[in-house]
Order: sequence, then C-alpha cells, then structure tokens
Amino acid sequence: MAKKYVYSFKEGNKDMRSLLGGKGANLAEMTNLNLNVPNGFTVTTEACNRFYEENEEIWQDLENEIISHLHELESSTGKQFGSTENPLLVSVRSGAVQSMPGMMDTILNLGLNDKSVIGLANKSSNERFAYDSYRRFIQMFSDVAMEIPKAYFDSVLDSVKEENNRDKDTELTADELKEIVEKYKKVYKREMNEDFPQDPITQLKLATKAVFKSWNNQRAKIYRKLNNIDDKLGTAVNIQSMVFGNMGENSGTGVAFSRNPATGDSNVFGEYLMNAQGEDVVAGIRTPKEIHTLKEQMPEVYKEFEDTIKRLESHYKDMQDLEFTIEEGKLFILQTRNGKRTSSAAINIAVDLVNEGLISKEEAIMRVSPDSISQLLHPNFDPEDIKKSTLISKGLAASPGAASGKIYFTSEKAKLAAQNGEKVVIVRQETSPEDIEGMIIAEGILTSRGGMTSHAAVVARGMGKCCVAGASEVKVDEENEVMRVDSREYHTGDIISIDGSTGEIFEGEVKKINPTLSGNFEIFMKWVDEIKRLKIKANADTPQDATQAIEFGADGIGLCRTEHMFFKENRIIAVREMIIAKNIIDRKKALDKIIPFQRDDFYKMFKALNGHSFTIRLLDPPLHEFIPHNEEDIKKLAEELNIDKKVIHDTIIELAEVNPMLGHRGLRLAVTYPEIYRMQVRAIMEAAIKCKKEGISVHPEIMIPLSIDRDELNFVKKEIMEEINMVFEENSEKIDYKVGTMIETPRATILAGEIAKVADFFSYGTNDLTQMTYGFSRDDSGKFINEYIRKGIFEKSPFETLDIKGIGYLIKMCTENGRASNPNIQIGVCGETGGDPQSIKFYNEINLDYVSCSPYRVPIARLAAAQAEIERKK
Amino acid sequence: MAKKYVYSFKEGNKDMRSLLGGKGANLAEMTNLNLNVPNGFTVTTEACNRFYEENEEIWQDLENEIISHLHELESSTGKQFGSTENPLLVSVRSGAVQSMPGMMDTILNLGLNDKSVIGLANKSSNERFAYDSYRRFIQMFSDVAMEIPKAYFDSVLDSVKEENNRDKDTELTADELKEIVEKYKKVYKREMNEDFPQDPITQLKLATKAVFKSWNNQRAKIYRKLNNIDDKLGTAVNIQSMVFGNMGENSGTGVAFSRNPATGDSNVFGEYLMNAQGEDVVAGIRTPKEIHTLKEQMPEVYKEFEDTIKRLESHYKDMQDLEFTIEEGKLFILQTRNGKRTSSAAINIAVDLVNEGLISKEEAIMRVSPDSISQLLHPNFDPEDIKKSTLISKGLAASPGAASGKIYFTSEKAKLAAQNGEKVVIVRQETSPEDIEGMIIAEGILTSRGGMTSHAAVVARGMGKCCVAGASEVKVDEENEVMRVDSREYHTGDIISIDGSTGEIFEGEVKKINPTLSGNFEIFMKWVDEIKRLKIKANADTPQDATQAIEFGADGIGLCRTEHMFFKENRIIAVREMIIAKNIIDRKKALDKIIPFQRDDFYKMFKALNGHSFTIRLLDPPLHEFIPHNEEDIKKLAEELNIDKKVIHDTIIELAEVNPMLGHRGLRLAVTYPEIYRMQVRAIMEAAIKCKKEGISVHPEIMIPLSIDRDELNFVKKEIMEEINMVFEENSEKIDYKVGTMIETPRATILAGEIAKVADFFSYGTNDLTQMTYGFSRDDSGKFINEYIRKGIFEKSPFETLDIKGIGYLIKMCTENGRASNPNIQIGVCGETGGDPQSIKFYNEINLDYVSCSPYRVPIARLAAAQAEIERKK
Repeated sequence: MAKKYVYSFKEGNKDMRSLLGGKGANLAEMTNLNLNVPNGFTVTTEACNRFYEENEEIWQDLENEIISHLHELESSTGKQFGSTENPLLVSVRSGAVQSMPGMMDTILNLGLNDKSVIGLANKSSNERFAYDSYRRFIQMFSDVAMEIPKAYFDSVLDSVKEENNRDKDTELTADELKEIVEKYKKVYKREMNEDFPQDPITQLKLATKAVFKSWNNQRAKIYRKLNNIDDKLGTAVNIQSMVFGNMGENSGTGVAFSRNPATGDSNVFGEYLMNAQGEDVVAGIRTPKEIHTLKEQMPEVYKEFEDTIKRLESHYKDMQDLEFTIEEGKLFILQTRNGKRTSSAAINIAVDLVNEGLISKEEAIMRVSPDSISQLLHPNFDPEDIKKSTLISKGLAASPGAASGKIYFTSEKAKLAAQNGEKVVIVRQETSPEDIEGMIIAEGILTSRGGMTSHAAVVARGMGKCCVAGASEVKVDEENEVMRVDSREYHTGDIISIDGSTGEIFEGEVKKINPTLSGNFEIFMKWVDEIKRLKIKANADTPQDATQAIEFGADGIGLCRTEHMFFKENRIIAVREMIIAKNIIDRKKALDKIIPFQRDDFYKMFKALNGHSFTIRLLDPPLHEFIPHNEEDIKKLAEELNIDKKVIHDTIIELAEVNPMLGHRGLRLAVTYPEIYRMQVRAIMEAAIKCKKEGISVHPEIMIPLSIDRDELNFVKKEIMEEINMVFEENSEKIDYKVGTMIETPRATILAGEIAKVADFFSYGTNDLTQMTYGFSRDDSGKFINEYIRKGIFEKSPFETLDIKGIGYLIKMCTENGRASNPNIQIGVCGETGGDPQSIKFYNEINLDYVSCSPYRVPIARLAAAQAEIERKK
Repeated sequence: MAKKYVYSFKEGNKDMRSLLGGKGANLAEMTNLNLNVPNGFTVTTEACNRFYEENEEIWQDLENEIISHLHELESSTGKQFGSTENPLLVSVRSGAVQSMPGMMDTILNLGLNDKSVIGLANKSSNERFAYDSYRRFIQMFSDVAMEIPKAYFDSVLDSVKEENNRDKDTELTADELKEIVEKYKKVYKREMNEDFPQDPITQLKLATKAVFKSWNNQRAKIYRKLNNIDDKLGTAVNIQSMVFGNMGENSGTGVAFSRNPATGDSNVFGEYLMNAQGEDVVAGIRTPKEIHTLKEQMPEVYKEFEDTIKRLESHYKDMQDLEFTIEEGKLFILQTRNGKRTSSAAINIAVDLVNEGLISKEEAIMRVSPDSISQLLHPNFDPEDIKKSTLISKGLAASPGAASGKIYFTSEKAKLAAQNGEKVVIVRQETSPEDIEGMIIAEGILTSRGGMTSHAAVVARGMGKCCVAGASEVKVDEENEVMRVDSREYHTGDIISIDGSTGEIFEGEVKKINPTLSGNFEIFMKWVDEIKRLKIKANADTPQDATQAIEFGADGIGLCRTEHMFFKENRIIAVREMIIAKNIIDRKKALDKIIPFQRDDFYKMFKALNGHSFTIRLLDPPLHEFIPHNEEDIKKLAEELNIDKKVIHDTIIELAEVNPMLGHRGLRLAVTYPEIYRMQVRAIMEAAIKCKKEGISVHPEIMIPLSIDRDELNFVKKEIMEEINMVFEENSEKIDYKVGTMIETPRATILAGEIAKVADFFSYGTNDLTQMTYGFSRDDSGKFINEYIRKGIFEKSPFETLDIKGIGYLIKMCTENGRASNPNIQIGVCGETGGDPQSIKFYNEINLDYVSCSPYRVPIARLAAAQAEIERKK
C-alpha cells in the first residue's frame, strides 16, 4: 500500500503532532471532541520532506490524494469547488510541529474565481461580501503564495478609494470592489506573465507548494536556529473549509488565551474584532476590543466560547491560545494550541496548575524553558530613579522587562548599531516577520499600533524580550525616522527607556536594580531543588558576585579567577614588578607587596560566602597579559618602577608568544616560578585562618589550572602544600582544604586515571578543552565557525553548547577513569557550557557532581538540572 | 637472609650486567673462562641505588661485606692490605650497565701508604717503581675521589722536575719521587684539611663513595640524557688486585679491538705503551704504538693476546674492546666489552659476523643503532672540491664524517657560538670529559695528541661525530687560542674542514656531496627490508628530495607540503594577489595565474617518483603567512600589484590571529574558499594525466589537513571531487586516486569511526596532535619544556619522541575505530615522530601501515621498523 500523505481531521489526534503539525493535530483533536470546527484535512510533514526530495514539486500521487480528500470535503459540506450555486472555499495554513512565526501563515477564501464569486454572492445574498472576499483572496494569494509585493495591491486599493472618496475599506460598494478585483487580476498578470489562476485545484496546488517552500525561507531558518528546532522536521499544510467573520455585524473573529500570557493571571484574556477576518486582529491595523466586552455584545456566544476554552485547557492541561470566528452568530473554533507566555506567566501558570490538581510538580517543571527565566533575573528599573525620570507615554505591557537604548526605526540600522556595541530600542508602527533579526539584537521593542496579540507582542514574549505595544499616543513616522508625542520629537539615536511590565516609556536612561526571587517563583524553584541531583555552583570573582550567586541559590563558588584580582588598582603595579623581576629574590620582593591585597580579597570572599564552598583557581593567564603594550603606558610604568623603558620592552619581547593560548600559562607558570602559587595559597590560608578565628566557616578548594600529567600536577601540589603547611605552623591552626585541578587539555582527559590519584576534584574547563580538541582558537574561530554553520557543517558553535560526541566523549571517559582510581573525587564543570541547559542534561546523564556558571545563570542551571533529572528517570 | 651487595668475580657471569655492571659481569665471565684476570670483586648497582637512599653514605653492613671480600682477596693473592712485606694493591673502577664516559673511571694502586710503599719496594726490588706508584695513587685519588684539581699536583711535579733538570717523568729518581710524594701529601692536607688517608680501608671506602657519586655528576647525566639511559640503573664498583704495566721495559699496557672500530676491518686493531699504566694510553699524553709491533717485541705475549681476543669475540659473538696489562712479560686481561664502533664499522662487522656464521641476520640487525647510521647518510667532501682545497695537515681518521666550521679552542666558547647558529670545529690538544657538552654541539673535533682510543676518538665515535685525532704536526696553543702548522696560524673563528675518514685537514670550507649506499650497507638494508613490516615513506616537497628519498629506499612520498611550492619566485606574487582578493572573481583570477606553476610542480614530482605513490597535502598554513609584514616588502608588493599600501595593511589586520596555530588554516580555508583546493586538485590531476599520456605511472593520494569531523571533511571532499571529475571530463581521461585526511586534532581521533567512512587514508600529524593534546605551542613551549625536563617532570620533549601514554592512546583508539568502520583504510604517520625509532616501535606494535619521514631518515626508519618487528615477534 502506498504511504498515506493526507489525513482528514477525523483521522487524527493531538498525539500526531510530528506527522500533522501542531495545528493539524489540534484541529483533529478538537474535531473528535465534537467542538465546532470547520471540516478539513491535513497534508503531512512527511509530504513536505518528500517535496524537497522531489525537487520541490508536488508529485502526481500527492495531488490525487489531495483531490480525493477535497471531494470528501465537498460531500460533507454539500459545497462544490468553483460552484456558482454553493461554492466551497477553504483556508490554507502551514502547521509545523512547533509553532513557528516567520513561515507562511494563511491564505483565506481559496476557491474563489470569476464564477464561484457569483455563487458566494448568491448563497450569502451579499454581493459586496463576495467581492470583498475575492479581492482579499487575490491579494493574499499573490502576496503569500506568489511573492508579489503587497504594495502593488495597496496602491490599487488606495486609488479606487480616493476616486470614489471612500475613507475606510468597509465603505467600498460591491461595484467598486468588482473594479478592484479586475485591477488586481491585471497586477497579477503583469507580475506573473499569466492570468490569475481560475482553477481552484491549481490555486490549491500553488498554495500548498508555497507553504512547503516557506519552511525554508530565511526568516523561518533564523527562527529555527534561535529556538533549536531541527531543520528536518518539515511543515504540514491544513486545508479547511471557510467560515466568515466578515459577513456583517453579527460576524467577527478573535484570539484568546485561557489565562493571561503576560502575568499568568487565571482569567480568560483576549481580543476580537466584529466584521473582520483573522488577519485583521493579528496584523494590528485595527485596534481590537477586549474579549470580556463580547459578553455584553453576544452573551450566548461568549458563554459557549468561555466553556470551550476552559474545556480545552483542562483537556490539554495547559494554558490555551485559541483562534475563533463568529459567522452570523455561530461560534467556530479555528485553532487551539498551548499559549506562548512570559516567563513569569509560565511560572505562575505552572504553579497554579499544580495547585488546581491538573498537573504534577514534575510536569510543571518541564513546562518552563530554563533559558526563558533569565528575563526574571534581569534587572528592573529602580523605582527611585523612575520618580526622577520623564514619562513620555504609556502603551500595552506586552512583554515584561526593562530596556534602555538608542532609538532605531529600521531593523537594518538597528543591527548595524548593535554590531558597533550600541544598545538599541526598535521603534515601529507595527513589526512584521521581516523585523525578526532586528528584534533579536534589540534591548526592547516599542510599537504604536497592535494589541497584546500583535506580531511584536507575540514574538517579543517568545524571545523573552521587553516590549511595549500599541502605544497609540506615540506617532511613529518611519519614513522620516521620527517619533512624536504631542509636540515632542525623538530621533534616531535618542535614548529612551521602556518598561514591558507597566507599558511605560521614559526619556533617557533609567537606572536598574536587581530583582528578588519571591512568590510563585520561589515556590517553583523549591520544587526544582527537590528534584535536581546536580549541584549548581557559580563563577564569581568578587564578593558582590558571590553574594548575588548565593541569593540565586548557588551551592558555593565553583570558579574564582584570581587573575581578575591582579588587575585592580594599587596592586597591578606590584604584579608588573613581579613579572619584570629578573631573579627569584626580586620576584619574591614584589610578591610580598601583592600578598596583603590577595589575603584581603580572599577574606572578603570567605565572608560573603559564609560557609559555602569556595573554589579558587590559581593564576592562569600568561604573564604578558599583565604588561602594558602601548608606548605611553610603558613609559608610565617605567617611571613608577623607576627603571629603564628598555627593561620593559625586553620583558615584552621575552614574554611574547606566537600562540599564547598554548603557551606559558596555567600551572606551567608554577613549574617555572613556584613562588607565585605559593604566594596565592599563603594568602588563601591566612585569610581562611582569620575567618576561622572570627567564627566564619570556610571551605577552600584550591584549583590548579591546565594540567596535563600526574607528575606535573604533583610537582605543583607539593610546592603549594609545603607553603600551606608553613602557614599552618606559623599560625598554629589548620584548615580543611582540597586541592584539585581543572581538566582543560585533551591529555589530562586521557590520563585522568593517573591524575585523579593526586587530585581531590576535577573541574572541566570546557572553553579550553574545546579550543584544543577542535584546534579552534576562541579568539580567532568566530569567523570560520559562522561559515561552518552557514554551510550546514555545524548546527551551532561548540563554545556555546557542549559538543557531546567529541568533547563529551573525553569528559565521559575522564570522569569514569577518574572515579575508578579515586572513588571520592568530586567532578564538575566550570566552563561556559556549565550554564547551558542542553549541556547540563549531558552532565547530569554522566553523573557529574556539579556545574558552575555565572551568577545570573544559576537559577537557569538549577531548572535545567531538575529537567535533566526528570528526563533521565523516564 | 640479608641482601647480597658484593660478588666475587667467581660468583658472576656475563648475564648479570644489570646487577654487576658491564665491566663486572665481563670480569666474572672471563674469570670463569679461566683467562688471566687479576682477582677481585664487584659492589653491585643495587648498592649504588641504596647508597642514594641512605643519604649518600656507605652503610655499616655494606662496609662489612666489602671488608669480608677484601679478606678473601688477601688470602687468594697471598698479599695483605697495608703490608710492608707483600702489600695488596687494588684498582677501583666504576662499571655501569652500559659503558658511560663521563663517570669516574679508575683509581689505581689503592692500598699504598707510607708503610706499604716500602712493602712494594721490597717485593718488587724496585724502590723507584714503588714511589712512582705511590705518587700516581695520591694524585689520582685526590683528583678522582676528592676532586682536588690535578693542576696542583702537576705544578709540584713540574717544579721538582725543573729543580732536578729532568725532562721526562721516567727520568725522576726514587729520592725525587719520595720528595714528590711528601709534597703531594701536603697539597692534600692543604685542600682537605686532613692528612692523606693512610688506612687502606678508609681509602677504599672513600673511593667507593666517589664512584657512586660520579653516577650523578653533570657529565654523566648529560651522557645519559643523550643516550636515553635510565637514571635509576646505578653503577657497580669493581675492586681488583693490581697488576703493573709500569714495572719496567718488559711491562706494558694496552687497549685493543678484535676488529677495526672505525672501518669494521676484521684485523685486530689496537695500541699499547711499554712501562706505563692504563691511563697513559687513554689520556693521550704519550702517543702509543700500533698493536702489531708487539708481535715483534714480545711474540709469545702477542700470540696469547691474539688467541684471547679472538676467543672472546667468538664467545661474545661481537667485536671486543679489550684492556690488558703485561706485568714483567705476563699477560693479564683487565676488561673486555663489546666495542664501540662507527656506523659503517657496525654494519661491516654485523654483515661479516653473519657471513662467518656467528650470528643471525636478525641479530645483525639488532646490533646496529638506527640513529647511528645517519652518519652514513650525511654528505662527504666532494673529491673535485678537495682537489682545489689547501691541505693543512693530516691526523688519525678517528671517527668518520666530513665537517666544516669555525675553530674554537674551548668548549664554552664553542657552545656560545653554536647557540648563535655558527658551525663549530673544536680544536684541542686532547679532550677530557669536561668537553662533552662542546663536543655534542660541534660539527667535528680535531686533536693534536692521542691515538685512536683517546678520549676524543672514543667519544666522537660514540656520538657519530667526525673526529681527526693525534694530528701531531698541528701545534695547539690553547692559552693563546691559536693553532699552528709550520709557519701558518689559525685563530678562533677561522674556518677549517676536517675529514674523519681520511684524517685530512683543509683550510676553509670544502663542498659536500651526497653519499651512495653500497657494499655491506646495501646487503644489510636488504635484510632490513626483508624483515620490516611497516612501509617507510618520505616527506618531500621537491623533485630533488623525492629522488633522494627513493634512492634511500622510500616506498613513495607520504607528505608533500604544497605551501612550500607557493613561496617560490614568480608565483608568490600571484599567491599574494589571491589572498588580497576581495571576492571570488578576483580570487579565481589570481588562482588561474598560480595553476600553471602548480601543475608543473606536480608534473615534475610525478616524474621523479616514476610510479611510486605520491601523497599531496593541500594548502595548510594560515594565509597571513604568505603576506609580507615589514614596511619595505609591503611597499614593494603594493607596487607590484599596483594597489594602495592600505589594502595590504587592511588584509594584514583582517588576517591577523591571536593563536594562528588554532586559527583559519588547513581545510578550514577550503570551507571558506573552496576554489583554492579546487585549483590544487586541478593542477594535480592535469599533471597526472599528462604523465599518464607520457607513459609514466602515477598514484596521487590527496591529503586534506586538519579535519575535525566527517561532515567537514565530506564538504571539502565533495568540492574537490567535483573539480576532479570536471578535469577527467575535459580530458576524457581518468586517474586512480585516493582522498584521505591528516589526523591532527584530538577531535578527529575521537570521531575516527565516522571520518573513516569518507577517507581512503589517515595520516597522523603528530606535531599538531601533540600541540593540541598538550596545549603546548611548538613555537612557544621550548622554554618551559626545558624546565619540565630539568625538574624531572618530563623525560624528553614530546615533540621528539611520541608520548605513548597520551598521544599514543589517541592514535591507537583512532586506528582501531578507523579500521573498524573502513577495513580498507591505509593508516600512517607523517609528523616528526615518523622518523623516530622509539616512536616507530610503537607504530609497528599498533599495526600502522606506514610512517613517513625526511629523506635522510628513511634508512634509519627502515632499520627501526625492522628492529621493531623483530622485537614484536619475540
């Protein structure tokens, strides 16, 4: 039997997402729930993939299968394609497995032609409605399926309106619409070199092809990359008989959420427009009405709507995003899906659903994307500074967050500015899929039109990006790049601040303060901690960062980079003196000047950590990084140290390296100059002893970077332990401590069994490990990694998400061999990937003890670790 | 039972080398062969190692054991330690497992004191002899055991000689010698703050201690490092009753080889001195007589000597190096060992011994050290140029080879000059162990004194270094740094040339020519090829190198670095134009200019190879290496290309990399600019087709450098195969070819299973693989690798000999996984370690198909591969 590529709605259900796409599966599910869903069928994602194999052509068998389902649709609706009596009209919509803005969305009224438009007029007894539908169809089909610029049709429409002195589209008469239809067909012929297709089957074939092709357009590709969606999933095509929200004043269309997608509030939330078709609501051209006003306008319809949306929420056990149409007083459901929401809404809804008994804690945890909660952790505007700031206007609080930046009116200019390091707020009348790339790099988005479900609002919420939408007092003149509020004008480059949680727009930059985790978020994170197995530590070099990390739930510090301490004022001069020293006596003299600073650094860190574990990495970078390289600074340093400039120049030449990343750094410095690490461990232990005497509990873990070998690590370990024992003896006091190493070289991963015998812990430095295993310099590979991604060789940069089959292989082997020879060894990660959810999943699978990441990623990592553990248990 | 640390000669045999040292084991063996060996005993190498554990003290039990063997020696010889009647005197000599110049060698006449000297005088009826022996003993003991400078004693000797108007030492009377003894004892007291030890047991204890300590002196350490001898082996101490070669004119001492150690000629070869002790021969103070003159002088002794040496050669199945003493007409054998020899002698002897039926081909192969044959491969002086050169003088052809360089008279100055890149010939009256470091860096060594067994000659032969010894016409004034021959003078920095195969010394530099392999060497290498399993290919970038490689027995070219071709005149300008090109059109235009050159390069290589396989690595280095960086060259290039200098500066900035070794190079260039590799493969295939049409067989193997991934390699492979197919179509001709990759990144070794599916061969680039696995930049790590070696963390640099436990692990895994997924894959090595014998052993063990190395290392690699295979079969 031949493979089945087309399913009627009755044949599917919600679990067939990967075959029918999200939209198709849900239409089938609702059909089988006996909801009022217009009849139709779905062409599968497998057909899409085969379409690409067939050189982007609809093959004959598929065409036959579609036509046969079309005939079924004709008999079930009693309508005929192209009929002058009772014509069948359909909508054609894409439907990917995961909802994907940027792809071709919808063609309505397909099936209309010069004959069936008469049928529609007859059947509806409304000639104006029929031609209005026809002209909409021609324009939409031309734009969406054939890529004829919309502006060509707009100018026709505008000129007819002007000739006939019509202000609004709704004022156009049937005859005027007929004239528009004729002119639209001419535009089509001019652009396509052939007549507008009159055969409904041809229309359907072209539309289906257009949906398939939209899977691979630039915007869709970018969206997939941004959201880690597999390029090979493909999209389904949904063909559904039309219902009309534009049949008059007792018809309408709307979009609604079963709960508030911005806050998570449990009341139904949505918007609708009477006498309109669906795209009018989303496009933001007319500002729609709030859903609750429908209750007064059409109480029975509202009742049915409210019952339906709540029933669907219970059925799907998640907040629903519903599209509906009212045709002459009758409610039809056109789509349902799990609604996109802000992170705070996601958490509130998840916690509420658990409390309502609809889902388990584990399900709640799986509902929230780890990356999305970063928006909850980022600073808000300081209320004190808000008081001092000038409020420009207020729009809809479309996507929470606080953003300050320079105004840009086009995506292109905004991108350029962002590449130059500027912070950008994109200001537009409304956004469209073409703006996606600009929105990605912007701090925030401000639109003057559109509602809570407009493109800007939906996409911004999806990205976790701050957005104020429909700020109707703000007049945006895109052509002249000026934004006006009353008499005030703001131009490209002017700084504004927007608050996506209140809708407020301010002049200039408003100061920010850190958020606190409370309410449902706190409850949610408590569940997360109950379930996760991995410890989450933080990378922090200052007491401030350490405090923030602990507030965000870190289990101590997994990486403190001591070199950052070397750069601080007052001490960099002594560091440079140490580097320039030509013998051990001068070097020790300089180190003696550094030690009080280091001791104080560590003392403050221990205090901030107040008993949490503290992993300190000893000096890592090559010494030349501390020496100034421009002539002026060299001169200044020579004066400060009272030496000849030549000495500094000589040092620079002596320390210069061809490949510093593979040079004299890490514990190699300590093989050559053991006194540097000795100074550092002395400072650590003296600080620890001081704390202990003050009653502060301390848990120092000394981490030696860049080892390759047991003998090498042991050489350095012996040196530092000798110094530590001297400190203990001098103070008649001891401190429990660990000595471990970073695993950053491929060789260390291979020889882990030996190295583990002299290490209390391993911490993978995935940045260096990736550099060396790939032979990709982090500083230099950006350019060609982009080529690799562009040419489909890489999915993403290995510096962002762990390369599981390559680096992961080494890490797994290293972990197993390390544990085999030292069962008590603690093993974690402190490289960049320690905060990446996908990588955390792997680290949890191979049973690491901890990951360490930047303080702001700690909650994200906690959530990712909990999700990883839930998935592992499945 | 307590461990036995002392063995009498009767208790040992030749297989106890590791316990008794080479010398001790052979003395025991000879004792048991009933040869005339003076009685004695050996303190074991285990005692030496325990000595170091006991804080460098002789522990009581060892002392007791030594004394007990001493008593045995007293009863077996009928002599007593310290006796005034018939005193026992002994020699004390070190004896490592492998013979080791640089260690303490010998103290003779131990046991003499103010009383026993009278005993010796009485017993020998020769007071002069007794006091001569005593003064020699004091000086030797002081110098060797107590490190009192020899010069202090020399000046005493000189002044007494002057006072008494004596020219030679032998003219001194007994009374004068008594005076010298008294004065020597005073020198000793002055330097040591105590009297010269009169107690023979104390003397023996101090001497034993001195031998043990000499194991760890600087010279011995350097020698061990140079010869890969384990620091933990330790040395034995041999204590043997004295016989005297200085008892008058029917006494004497000599050194002889059973065959000629310089040429391998099968006649006995050696030297002796009458009325002398052993050190007189070796030290080169008196020029000794040729051994065959002994036949006339003492025919019976000579007959016994000749029988003995031939018997020992048959017994040991190898050429023997014998020390003997004639005491009043009676022959004593003091030592035998396998003789050191030049490489050509080693080969001649090995082939002769096989022909004489003494050893097997396999044994012959194992007898020749692979590294040593490099001297046979290095150039000799061009006979045509010799004719035109000025012959200064002629000395002994002590160690073959041809060396030109600047004269230096001290080891220190020679070392400094060599560090500055100068070629150096060391010129001295005679060399001593202090000169070892200078000899290591010198091109050649010239001495005015000493014979074929002098220090200079023996050490130079061991090193495979060119040496002319005993050039008696040459007067070397070390103090004034001048060398005189007749009226001519040569000063520091003057260039001379010396021929170690003829003994000739020339003024200035003489041109060299390449050697040919013939005679026994050819026979020997045929045996090698019969046994070896690995194929040996060569790294060669020019037709000349390719021809040389094939002459040296290479199985084709394993690595041709095409970038070297890019640098040639005429084409570098087009290469630079290609790099500066801002778009693909300009780039292709420049590539079109390069292709005729490349085609011609490959055509010539194919012709030179004449059917041998030819592995061509496509462009590897980052493009910035081809662009000039100094202002003058930039200006010139701008003029040549007729562009603004700024364009070049911009290109330099654009291409600059922080870590070029991990940057945009290798096949990464081809991911970005596929047209470069396309140009190269087009040139290869067009050249191959041209050859094919001319009847020359061609086997191109295209090697893609630096892969990390199957998808990446496949991307590049598809590009080049597309181009190759175009060439085939254009020419209506096909060529069999392979496409493989270098394995240089750790990631490639991990993903070998996948990569092997798209590769016909793998070639390990151990240089890059070592760089990345260690994180050691080859350009930068020299400094700290030396620290690692100095501090005992590394034994040697991983860039010289493969790091088997680290890099070797990856290579083994990669090989296994590669073969598992592609059983036909060919796997080899083309990095630096491909020519290193120790590494070759590993490559043979893990069953690689080939190694590739520089043409001059090909015979070395062939021999190493044969030895590896013999060892594996054991």
